[in-house]
This record gives sequence, structure tokens and C-alpha cells, in this order.
Amino acid sequence: MSDPLITLTTDFGTASPYVAAMKGVILALNSRARLIDLTHDVPPQDIRHAAFFLASALPTFPPEALHVVVVDPGVGTDRAALYVEVAGRKLLAPDNGCWTLLADEQPPARVIRLAEPRFFRAQVSATFHGRDVFAPVAGHLSLGVDPGELGPPADRWVSLPFPRPRAAADRLCGEVVFIDGFGNLITNLPADALLGRRARVFVRSEEIPRVVRTYGEGGPGDLVALVSSWGRVEVAQVMGSAAAELQVGPGAAVTLEWQK
Amino acid sequence: MSDPLITLTTDFGTASPYVAAMKGVILALNSRARLIDLTHDVPPQDIRHAAFFLASALPTFPPEALHVVVVDPGVGTDRAALYVEVAGRKLLAPDNGCWTLLADEQPPARVIRLAEPRFFRAQVSATFHGRDVFAPVAGHLSLGVDPGELGPPADRWVSLPFPRPRAAADRLCGEVVFIDGFGNLITNLPADALLGRRARVFVRSEEIPRVVRTYGEGGPGDLVALVSSWGRVEVAQVMGSAAAELQVGPGAAVTLEWQK
Amino acid sequence: MSDPLITLTTDFGTASPYVAAMKGVILALNSRARLIDLTHDVPPQDIRHAAFFLASALPTFPPEALHVVVVDPGVGTDRAALYVEVAGRKLLAPDNGCWTLLADEQPPARVIRLAEPRFFRAQVSATFHGRDVFAPVAGHLSLGVDPGELGPPADRWVSLPFPRPRAAADRLCGEVVFIDGFGNLITNLPADALLGRRARVFVRSEEIPRVVRTYGEGGPGDLVALVSSWGRVEVAQVMGSAAAELQVGPGAAVTLEWQK
Repeated sequence: MSDPLITLTTDFGTASPYVAAMKGVILALNSRARLIDLTHDVPPQDIRHAAFFLASALPTFPPEALHVVVVDPGVGTDRAALYVEVAGRKLLAPDNGCWTLLADEQPPARVIRLAEPRFFRAQVSATFHGRDVFAPVAGHLSLGVDPGELGPPADRWVSLPFPRPRAAADRLCGEVVFIDGFGNLITNLPADALLGRRARVFVRSEEIPRVVRTYGEGGPGDLVALVSSWGRVEVAQVMGSAAAELQVGPGAAVTLEWQK
Repeated sequence: MSDPLITLTTDFGTASPYVAAMKGVILALNSRARLIDLTHDVPPQDIRHAAFFLASALPTFPPEALHVVVVDPGVGTDRAALYVEVAGRKLLAPDNGCWTLLADEQPPARVIRLAEPRFFRAQVSATFHGRDVFAPVAGHLSLGVDPGELGPPADRWVSLPFPRPRAAADRLCGEVVFIDGFGNLITNLPADALLGRRARVFVRSEEIPRVVRTYGEGGPGDLVALVSSWGRVEVAQVMGSAAAELQVGPGAAVTLEWQK
Repeated sequence: MSDPLITLTTDFGTASPYVAAMKGVILALNSRARLIDLTHDVPPQDIRHAAFFLASALPTFPPEALHVVVVDPGVGTDRAALYVEVAGRKLLAPDNGCWTLLADEQPPARVIRLAEPRFFRAQVSATFHGRDVFAPVAGHLSLGVDPGELGPPADRWVSLPFPRPRAAADRLCGEVVFIDGFGNLITNLPADALLGRRARVFVRSEEIPRVVRTYGEGGPGDLVALVSSWGRVEVAQVMGSAAAELQVGPGAAVTLEWQK
């Protein structure tokens, strides 16, 4: 059996000592733990970004990995800290909805409220539960602690609403839900809305001139619509940034208009 | 016994090949070494930032970890390269004070000047001791080389002065020592100056309106003072950046005024 | 024998879920794989940057490491995906020249075109071969699949032209090939052009006032020329950024003029 995998997803950046402190706490409890950085570049306090990130990345991981998520604007308030089993994945995360996109239509298999201070750091600060709660609980879990020991089952939790596209006879109205590092606009419009039928794509009121299969089909600077690698409609600029070119952010309207 | 842990802290960024080259050198010597990135985002040549980072993060690590630190504006000059045991931690670092905040009041248990070229790379450049000195020495240490073989004991080293707050009858005058990735201002004022007594907090001449226990007690945009997760007074903007709001950097004056 | 080493080099940044998704795919196939981040900060689609990065970093690694490179503007087009053995290193990379600087004068020992979908993800998207082709092939290789099973040998591939300096009787004309995280300008001029003879160094038409051995020989703000840690002429600003000071980017002319 290989050593336990623990992934880390935060909005701490790496210039500050927060991520390093978490790594130290986990390794001090279990020096065999194998730490995998997923990202520390979630925009500060951006739960929606974290939710999309996790829903996109975690399904590729093996089920035994434990995913520690600390994007936690409510730290130190009465928001709960959770252990969650959902969609075959295991997470530790604050109760702010960052994991609920993973659930999709199926309910989580298990949600536990972290309530046993013996698995926390001796002193728990009011501002850094990543180091004082989530990291030590991850360390204990990696040593074989049964999740049932962490606290009582939770029967409710914060759920992040995911914007659903609105359909009309000749169009589908959605929005940008994520902008990736290339400036590509990932939308909430499903791929099949674009495939197998002639469609025009608009970001706000600007039409995207071409629908393509991959970036290389357009020339440098061309704006194109295509199916993203996560099965959604994406708008991109070939060798450029659609977000910068169109000056849009998450939430911007994207419309598909089917042609007769 | 688990495989040896080696952490890396640099100001190299990751767009350049410097960090990767160090990783390769260590793994070529000991492919069982387990590399842990602490940060490569120390601002260029900022020894003070590195010192605060290390003093905050390293105490959480298990004692067996070896911490390699390369923030090294004096590379290639006659500044020494050191192996240090301090506060129960082991480091390799240039002799520029980046580790001395860890010592606090107790002296380091051991300081050795790296002087044995047989533990270096065959050719040592004048500009990249991370790859040519620190990484290979780390590799050799992880294979079991005794630190005493690395060179002679050092009896003096550069010590970084840490600014101490100045006390008066009704006030304590300190300063910002670190700005984290959220724009929170970490000061050199101890937590107990803020706890259990009524105090007003000023950054330069601007009063911080509220003293709170955690960020969630303020509304978005509020400036608050609180106890940081490292036991010091911190000034933050809820869901924002106090550094940007107040336009201050490290060294800015922070004053506590106790009320009668 | 230690667990297999797989390094990752991309232009994805880490705020997007792309790198994390690749890590999950590899670990789901082989949970013993040891993942090493080299960089995810190659500028978007910058094959030349990736080429210089790899040529500088990979020679330090042990030969058994597998290097996965995904800087891939041609994803989804008919550009090939390759397994390469070159200069004693093993890579998986798109066929866009990103690895050919490693070859220097010697030809690669082996180049194979990835052509066996049984080693790919079940569904291969048109836009993300990092997750769907390169990561799963890396996982299979780390489990012991013979590279010969991946596809047929390739007998041609894209080669990146490396700009060679032009020599005249009294001068050598080169250019900036890479700018590191400190703003240092790495050129294509070999070190021996600077050593052992008196030379004047110009960036465009501006003379660099001093030739030194290491940064510490100049005062803060001084522009200096020196031998870089990779054996090429480098232009730096002590405690500053030569790229910002001189406002130059890759491709800028650098000239050495020997003195009589």
C-alpha cells in the first residue's frame, strides 16, 4: 500500500507562511503523508472559484486521496468545519458550499461536523483553522482515525447555487462561470447545445465569429467558441485572452442562438 | 522510517529554471528525498520577508526535516554558507540573518560553515549556490552524511535585528513587519497588549475603528484590529486588503493606546 | 528501488484546475508516482521559454525521472504527441520543438509518436491533452509499460531554431534568449567570449558599465555583465531588474566588443 495522499487547495498564495505552516503540521503528525499542491491561487475568499476548481479537478483523483480545502472567509465564526464524502471523494472543508458542486444530483454519502478538539492543534486560533483544525485532522485521518470519531453527522450544510442556463425556443441563455489562466471563458452552457446543430454564440451582445473544434483551427487573435475540456461551451481567443479582449468576468451573459 | 524530507524556500519564482535545477540536483544524489515546496515567492532579495516566513512556518515541522533556504543577494561574495541547528530545526542557508528570528532568545545548538567542496557540485558558479552548494549538501545530508563533516563550527554569524516595540505609560509603538497575501498587516506588537484591556489601534495616524476576535465579526470593507494566528496584533480589512486600503508597507508605524 | 519520479512543466498557471486534473489522472493510474512540479508559469504558449527552461533544468535530474511537458498551442490539431529520449533524459511532450534545445549537437536516442489510445483517457478532448493523453501515458510508463508499445518511431519532428551569435573580427553579436525572475538578461553569448580578455558589453546601444564575477561586486542599482550560472553572458542590475531598467525583452541585441 502506498503512503497516504493529501491534497491542498487554498487561497493563501505562497508568499505568506500559511501553506507552509499547514504542511508542517500534517508532516509532524504523519511524516509519511504525501502532500500534493492543487492550488494556493484561488482568488482571496472566492468560494465560487474554489467550487468550480474542485468540481473540475477532484473527479480525476483516486478515491483514497484526502482533499483539504481552506478557502474560508468565515474562519472563527460559528460556520462549521466538515469532513465530507461525496461523489467518491473525501474532503475536509469549511461549511461554505465550496464542495457542493461535486455532489451534482446525488447527495453526499457522509457529512460530519468536526467537533473533537483532541484532533485539533492544542491552541486553536480564531483566524487560521487551516493550520489549527484542518491540517491536524488531515494528519490524524491519514494515520487511520475513523471519520466517525471526528464528530457528529451533519444533516444540513451550505449549498452553493450553480447558475442554470435558461432555455427559450431558439436560444439558451447562460453565463461565464470561470475564467482560466489563458483568459478562456468557461460557461454553464452544456456542450450538446453547440454540437450537431448550427448555432451563433454571443458574449453579451458581441457575436463570436467562429465555432471550432480546437484552438488551432483559428488564426492568432481570432475569437472562437468551442467545447471545453469539461464538456461545456467555452469562448477563447487563439493565442490570446478572450477575457481581456472582451473585457468580461464571471457572470457575463453568454447566449446560444440556434439557426433555423 | 520514512524517506527524508527536504523543504525549499527561495526568492526564485517558478518561471525561471532555478528551482527545478535545485530539485534535480537533490534527486540525482538521493532519489528517495521527498521535496516540499514552502515558497519560491519571497520578494527578490528580501531577507526580512524570508526571516519572518521561516520563523512562522518552520516551528510546525517535524525536527527531522531539513530546510533549504536560498534568498541570497550575497551569492559568490565571501558571505558564508551555513548548516544550522536552531530551535529544534535544521537549515541550510546563506549567512545573512534569514534564520536568526527562529533563535529568539536561545542560541543555536550548532552552526557550521560549509567548507568541504567534495559535498558541492563539481563546478561551483559565482551566481547560483542554490544549485551548486546548498542542493548538493542537502542531498548528501539526506543520505546520512554527518553535519560535522561539512566544515568547521562557526562562532559568529549575521544576525537580523528584529524591531522591538517601544513602550510608554499609555501606549506601545510598533510597526508592520509583514504583509500577507490577503493584505493583512502583521505587526511586532504582542497579542497581550490587545487582550484584556481597552485599546485604540492606529496605523500611522489613522485609527482602526474596531477591535475584533475574527474577520467575520466585521462587515465587508471594515478595517479591524485583531490577534493574528502567530500571536501578534494584526490589522485587516474584512474581505479586502488593509495594505491597499491604508497604502502601507512593512515598517509603517502601528500604535496601541490604552484607555484609562 | 524508489517510487517513480514524474515532473510536470506547463503554462497552465495554478489558479485553473488543469494541473490538478493532470495530477489526479497520474495518481489514479499509479498512486506510488512521485510528482515534482517544475513550473506551471511558462508564459502562455511560449514554446521558446519552455525550451530554455527545460534545457537549463533537466540536465540536473536523475536519468530515471520522466518529464511531462505541456506547453501546447497546437493541441487538438494534427501535431504529434511524442515520447523522447534525449541527452539521457526522458520526456513526454507535444511535437513543437520544446525539447530540441536539449539535443544540442547529438541526435535524440529515441522519438516515438504516441498512437495507442489504450494508454489514453477513455475520452480524449480536443483541447486538453495534458489530462487526456500526456498524464495517462505518464502513469502507464511509471507502471512499467515499455515505451515501444506507445506507438511507432518518429523519423522527423519540429526543431526549434536556437539563435546563434554572429562573429566579426572585433565583436560578437548575440541576443537576449531568456529573462529570469529577477529581471536578469540571459544571452546566447558563450562565457568564454567574456573571460580572459577585455570586452565591452552593449545591450542595444547602451554600454553596460562593469564586467564582474558576481552580483555582490556591484553597488545597488549598478548594471553589470557577468557569466551566468549556465555558462552564458548575463546582464543584471544589482538588487534590481535589468529587464525593467533597460526595458528590453527576449530578442534584444547584445553585443560584445573586444578591446585591442
